[in-house]
Amino acid sequence: MKHIAILGSSGSIGTQALEVVEENPGLFKVIVLTVHQNAALLVKQALKFKPEKVVISDELKYEEVKSALQGSGIEVYGGEDALSEVVTDPKIDIVLTAVVGFCGLKPTIAAIRAGKDIALANKETMVVAGGLVNALAKEHDVRILPVDSEHSAIFQCLTGEEGNPIEKIYLTASGGPFRGRDAAFLASVTRHQALKHPNWVMGAKITIDSATLMNKGLEVIEAKWLFDLDPSQIDVIVHPQSIVHSLVQFEDGSMKAQMGLPDMKLPIQYAFGYPGRIKNTFPRFDFLKYPQLTFEQPDRGTFRNLEYAFNALEQGGNMPCVINAANEVVVAEFLNDRLGFLQMSEVIEKCMTEVSYIRHPVLEDYIETDKETRIIARHLVTKF
Amino acid sequence: MKHIAILGSSGSIGTQALEVVEENPGLFKVIVLTVHQNAALLVKQALKFKPEKVVISDELKYEEVKSALQGSGIEVYGGEDALSEVVTDPKIDIVLTAVVGFCGLKPTIAAIRAGKDIALANKETMVVAGGLVNALAKEHDVRILPVDSEHSAIFQCLTGEEGNPIEKIYLTASGGPFRGRDAAFLASVTRHQALKHPNWVMGAKITIDSATLMNKGLEVIEAKWLFDLDPSQIDVIVHPQSIVHSLVQFEDGSMKAQMGLPDMKLPIQYAFGYPGRIKNTFPRFDFLKYPQLTFEQPDRGTFRNLEYAFNALEQGGNMPCVINAANEVVVAEFLNDRLGFLQMSEVIEKCMTEVSYIRHPVLEDYIETDKETRIIARHLVTKF
Repeated sequence: MKHIAILGSSGSIGTQALEVVEENPGLFKVIVLTVHQNAALLVKQALKFKPEKVVISDELKYEEVKSALQGSGIEVYGGEDALSEVVTDPKIDIVLTAVVGFCGLKPTIAAIRAGKDIALANKETMVVAGGLVNALAKEHDVRILPVDSEHSAIFQCLTGEEGNPIEKIYLTASGGPFRGRDAAFLASVTRHQALKHPNWVMGAKITIDSATLMNKGLEVIEAKWLFDLDPSQIDVIVHPQSIVHSLVQFEDGSMKAQMGLPDMKLPIQYAFGYPGRIKNTFPRFDFLKYPQLTFEQPDRGTFRNLEYAFNALEQGGNMPCVINAANEVVVAEFLNDRLGFLQMSEVIEKCMTEVSYIRHPVLEDYIETDKETRIIARHLVTKF
Repeated sequence: MKHIAILGSSGSIGTQALEVVEENPGLFKVIVLTVHQNAALLVKQALKFKPEKVVISDELKYEEVKSALQGSGIEVYGGEDALSEVVTDPKIDIVLTAVVGFCGLKPTIAAIRAGKDIALANKETMVVAGGLVNALAKEHDVRILPVDSEHSAIFQCLTGEEGNPIEKIYLTASGGPFRGRDAAFLASVTRHQALKHPNWVMGAKITIDSATLMNKGLEVIEAKWLFDLDPSQIDVIVHPQSIVHSLVQFEDGSMKAQMGLPDMKLPIQYAFGYPGRIKNTFPRFDFLKYPQLTFEQPDRGTFRNLEYAFNALEQGGNMPCVINAANEVVVAEFLNDRLGFLQMSEVIEKCMTEVSYIRHPVLEDYIETDKETRIIARHLVTKF
């Protein structure tokens, strides 16, 4: 029986993780659930899964949760700092970090320091501070188990290949809802159009990131740290059917791909069960329904964010932290109809030159960079 | 340094295996080389690779080889029985069985009994007597390392998945030169047309087997024994580009594929180096040259041999041995222009009903079945 903490249980990954737990009552037990604001769902989940502790980051909602769980025996905490405390509970084996954005960094670090394996859905943690997180994970002998479907694919392809260096990886990208479109078209797309992902049902932030290709850019940076790669070893290939989830090429030229229908429950379950695979009844892939799998180059000229992510990775230091923070700001503004689709990239590009560059940042530098970038990005947004 | 015996060094696999040895002088050394009839090539290979022993199965060519290697210090043997003797040399670590057909069975068994790992290119060994070979391999604690590209693909996908049962495998098939053709067309195809494989450069026997889909049928049976599968767990999918070499689906629905350009040197090298991968300069796969990978159902109605192979596997006993022997006869006759393309299947089908069925054969039964089937098949050929 593995004991699990789910940070971000009200989101797309969090709710699917709870389905995985529910489907495998003999294997997994939830010890901690946390949400940002969705008090009603947290209460419902808590009454069903009976964790020992719950956290609501938004302190304004604390009393609501507290009173709803009165008498349940479940400990209730409020505020963001509580996340970093509850993950250290000695009973916990694995912490699933399914919160969105930079706010995942601190609790992930706290969990690593407490020796917990990390099921990493919060890619921003690795984007912002991958080097630091890796060093801590090594020091505390914990596993980082990727939950992103692409990185889970590569992770699955690497089992049993421990002594065999990677030559190259290909991260596949659906291309998003605007694949093949030009800048003139993109200039006027709406939030509504951008939220329609062709293959994956996900949260709003990551869906917009998929439409701009920033999601793939962040994944490139995440992959660098997860698999210890040079940027030149990472390639992105657009694969509109989202069946091949990613590929590894070894030094003998052999490639391994992990494939299947797009379903986030599989990588979640794989991370929880690793190294074992758990029998399930998820729908199976059928070649006859996908007689053609196609591949093409991403259009980095039109979708600039992917280019910026590669640039940030090359520059290193706090630059990935800069693009992540700038991106969080612009996506929120786009979702509030205060910024156009292409303007998101413009703000990110400007932040990369305006924020102070730090070659060898420590944790506090990342926190400062994140704050500074958000201020600059918000200021830039007001100019449009 | 691994010491290698190559049975069938003049064939397509044998010569490519020698290239792998030549490219990795620090890793591999050839101890034994054997050929069936090609004395000139054997002498040339022997003088270059300096094995300790060579065998020419065709005793009529023995004196030619013996005199050509006079003074070289290389021991020369003649006759088929010598194969089973030379493979037991204590220096040998791995025996590559790259001979064609039923004649690979005896030396493979001798090598297993002597505790040698087997790099198995001779699929007929597993088709005819997979259960027996598996039992011996277990008894003598030897590895069977598949060299067929499809089985190597599956073997590669299974590394690190030791505790995770296979739900299903997909063996990919190019479909051969006659994919999409109907029986009316096939009735009149020539040897010359059938020998033009779209993707793979291979020996004549296996190229004809690819055109009739018997090669895939034999591979289905081989896969059953190599990976301990029920016939219902094995599916064949036509993939004309021959880039995805085969796939495994696990019980969680996740699929792993091994991919790359069609090049037999890769599986040969993998078997020799296993579990390590050896860096090489083989041409790499490029998605932009293969923007579409396509998949379709095999046409078992037109290409009957695939159906017969599944039937033989279901019937078990000596039936796979029957279809293998019948197929060896009809392919030889087709290559000599004495039998039509579709008539090959007719002979095989008749042999399946006319040869004595043995439910639990031992080694001698396989040898008898092979002989009996060849007699019946040759007799049936004379009727056309």
